[in-house]
Amino acid sequence: MLSEQDLQTIVSDITDNYKNEELFQRNSGYPMPNRDQIIHIIMGLRQIMFPGYFDEEQLEHTVPEYFLGHNLMRIHDTLRSQVYFALLRHSSKEEKARTLQRADDICTQFFQSLCDIQNLLLKDVDAAFNGDPAAKTKEEIIFCYPGLFAIFVYRIAHRFYQLKVPFLPRIMSEYAHDHTGIDINPGATIGEYFFIDHGTGVVIGETTIIGNNVKIYQGVTLGALSTRSGQLLRDVKRHPTIEDDVTIYSSASILGGETVIGKGSVIGGNAFITESVPAGTRVIAKNPDLTFTERGEGNDLFD
Amino acid sequence: MLSEQDLQTIVSDITDNYKNEELFQRNSGYPMPNRDQIIHIIMGLRQIMFPGYFDEEQLEHTVPEYFLGHNLMRIHDTLRSQVYFALLRHSSKEEKARTLQRADDICTQFFQSLCDIQNLLLKDVDAAFNGDPAAKTKEEIIFCYPGLFAIFVYRIAHRFYQLKVPFLPRIMSEYAHDHTGIDINPGATIGEYFFIDHGTGVVIGETTIIGNNVKIYQGVTLGALSTRSGQLLRDVKRHPTIEDDVTIYSSASILGGETVIGKGSVIGGNAFITESVPAGTRVIAKNPDLTFTERGEGNDLFD
Amino acid sequence: MLSEQDLQTIVSDITDNYKNEELFQRNSGYPMPNRDQIIHIIMGLRQIMFPGYFDEEQLEHTVPEYFLGHNLMRIHDTLRSQVYFALLRHSSKEEKARTLQRADDICTQFFQSLCDIQNLLLKDVDAAFNGDPAAKTKEEIIFCYPGLFAIFVYRIAHRFYQLKVPFLPRIMSEYAHDHTGIDINPGATIGEYFFIDHGTGVVIGETTIIGNNVKIYQGVTLGALSTRSGQLLRDVKRHPTIEDDVTIYSSASILGGETVIGKGSVIGGNAFITESVPAGTRVIAKNPDLTFTERGEGNDLFD
Repeated sequence: MLSEQDLQTIVSDITDNYKNEELFQRNSGYPMPNRDQIIHIIMGLRQIMFPGYFDEEQLEHTVPEYFLGHNLMRIHDTLRSQVYFALLRHSSKEEKARTLQRADDICTQFFQSLCDIQNLLLKDVDAAFNGDPAAKTKEEIIFCYPGLFAIFVYRIAHRFYQLKVPFLPRIMSEYAHDHTGIDINPGATIGEYFFIDHGTGVVIGETTIIGNNVKIYQGVTLGALSTRSGQLLRDVKRHPTIEDDVTIYSSASILGGETVIGKGSVIGGNAFITESVPAGTRVIAKNPDLTFTERGEGNDLFD
Repeated sequence: MLSEQDLQTIVSDITDNYKNEELFQRNSGYPMPNRDQIIHIIMGLRQIMFPGYFDEEQLEHTVPEYFLGHNLMRIHDTLRSQVYFALLRHSSKEEKARTLQRADDICTQFFQSLCDIQNLLLKDVDAAFNGDPAAKTKEEIIFCYPGLFAIFVYRIAHRFYQLKVPFLPRIMSEYAHDHTGIDINPGATIGEYFFIDHGTGVVIGETTIIGNNVKIYQGVTLGALSTRSGQLLRDVKRHPTIEDDVTIYSSASILGGETVIGKGSVIGGNAFITESVPAGTRVIAKNPDLTFTERGEGNDLFD
Repeated sequence: MLSEQDLQTIVSDITDNYKNEELFQRNSGYPMPNRDQIIHIIMGLRQIMFPGYFDEEQLEHTVPEYFLGHNLMRIHDTLRSQVYFALLRHSSKEEKARTLQRADDICTQFFQSLCDIQNLLLKDVDAAFNGDPAAKTKEEIIFCYPGLFAIFVYRIAHRFYQLKVPFLPRIMSEYAHDHTGIDINPGATIGEYFFIDHGTGVVIGETTIIGNNVKIYQGVTLGALSTRSGQLLRDVKRHPTIEDDVTIYSSASILGGETVIGKGSVIGGNAFITESVPAGTRVIAKNPDLTFTERGEGNDLFD
């Protein structure tokens, strides 16, 4: 068994870390936002956005106004405290007095966007159904398509990003990333009828701009050219612009803040693009030459 | 705080969406399948398939027949209602009367396949152990290899796909996709001794056919050439055929419904293949030419 | 409903599998390690490593020594039994008597490493903040960056790998793989200030060696050349060595046990490398040639 003396040494060493590390110190007095509560908010909003799909109860046994009013108020209370805690940790002393008022304003503005967000999501469901021959029904898309889930969380997180709430947007988007393998930074700007198929490995950077009716496959990166300068690049447009009606096939990379993919273009699988492409272009990456040999001939690269 | 008037406007706007949107309306009277229940079914089946690995209790303190009988009946009841609800939502008025009988028939046929599915899974465990030098024991593979988990869920979901149950197969396969990054459409046909190593980013499309003793690495896509025609392509063979004894290394893409990878072939990493390959061929993608420069020379593409 | 006779046949067939399959038999008498308990250990250790970020309670209302002492002892008891069970299953008859003593020694050694692991993790947080212009604060990194979570779990799992505990390291690393899409084998050796950005699809093999201040993007594989020989390759160095201050951009593959990427090199996106690279080199994969055509011209490859 761990001896008492060993335990005391371990506790004392780690306590020193606690005392010396700024990241563990400046918390005092103010609670941190709570990741679990923020996930509860996402799940509650999903029940509101897609009534009847993720509820325990059957919706037809209740009045929609009661269901909505009750659920909205429940989410509101959790949201209000999480926004308040998040703001507090980034407030100067003078701002702290006004923080609760700011949290209330933010919550009101957020809830006023909900109906618009729901309308956007219904268009995203249409885009998924029309874009995927394997989709049996729109209901299946709502129930279990990871692309739709990632887009739903993005549309919520993006609103909090616009409202300048710290922590919440990224905690939300990383929750979706965890479950879908799709990493959409909440700062990205994304239009209507957006569809991501399969989705694992997709990365959409913070300053990306995406138009309407865009379709993206697994493994696509909309990224930066270089991040060597680190924090100096903050707020610089580092990621590309994708205009309306563009399709980007699997594992294509489109990099750079000045790169624009023109309206109606199609980017083939594995293409690697660092310069703009005019509207209406089909870009196909020449496949790497293939060598065909009979197995058994000496080569241990792939065997 | 959110004012009463604001709340009323929000509730009223979203309620209008509820009333106008077909996706939220046609539910009435029939419960929806429940995603959580379907996940419980998967987890219960995993305990049956791999006794002693995922149970709370120790198996040696019980009689196998009791353990099995009890667990099967418990799963059966949940499964029966979920299959019933799923069928109901896709039944015409005339069919509804026979739906419970159909659900019962499906459950019986499914349970009658369980022993065969278990035998297949034991072969998949062998394939993983023989194929991966990092595997310490077969038990480790059962405990935590994501490839085996994805294949287990696929073999279950595929059976429900064959039995023409709506919703369940895809909800199951997306649960595995969430946890493993491996996206196997339940419609795919996959033989014995199948092994997926690492697995993140693997996509196996609905009409793919895979033979026996096939090994696949992370990032491999077995996909369609184009999905531009959307729902018009439903039920067309859009994905490739992989014959027996084929190995496909990481991030290779094999596309198209008429593409056949012949028996015993090896496909190298990053290969991009849209045409058939004869049996016994080793296909290596010529690596893209590499440029070597000293760092510090001007180039901001990657730095 | 499933008839009694059908049920009996199914139960009897699967019971035969239970009796005939070694994997389900040799468990008897000794409990298996429990995956849920092992995940509890990880989560408990995360609360200790990052106090105030993942706790229910507010830390300032307690004395750090009490918080730590209490949590350490709680984790210790769970860990001790899991290590004991894991060792038991791999002990010869003669070793079994000494197994509890071995488990105690391992637990003591593990806890004695905790303070060092915490110091490493604080450096990893710095590396992430300095390397990512999208990072708003270091707190955000602790809260939700998947790269940091994967590295945290790796540093814990690697310690148990060093201490030769069966099962636990891989169960831990696959838990992180599940949540992040980042697959770091617990056997890999990784230095200080390690950062993985986005991360989905990253694979770092068992015998990889990584120096200090290395930065890796999504989709990077540090892998083996061929695994055809399966279990015969166990304990052979099959994966590359990455020296200090190297950056590896997205979807690059570096393969082979003798491949060394020299200090300070930069590997561009999509590069495919199977031979060593001298220190201070920038390696850029020539992009595949792109074909630009107007859409509508005949081609169904990507459309």
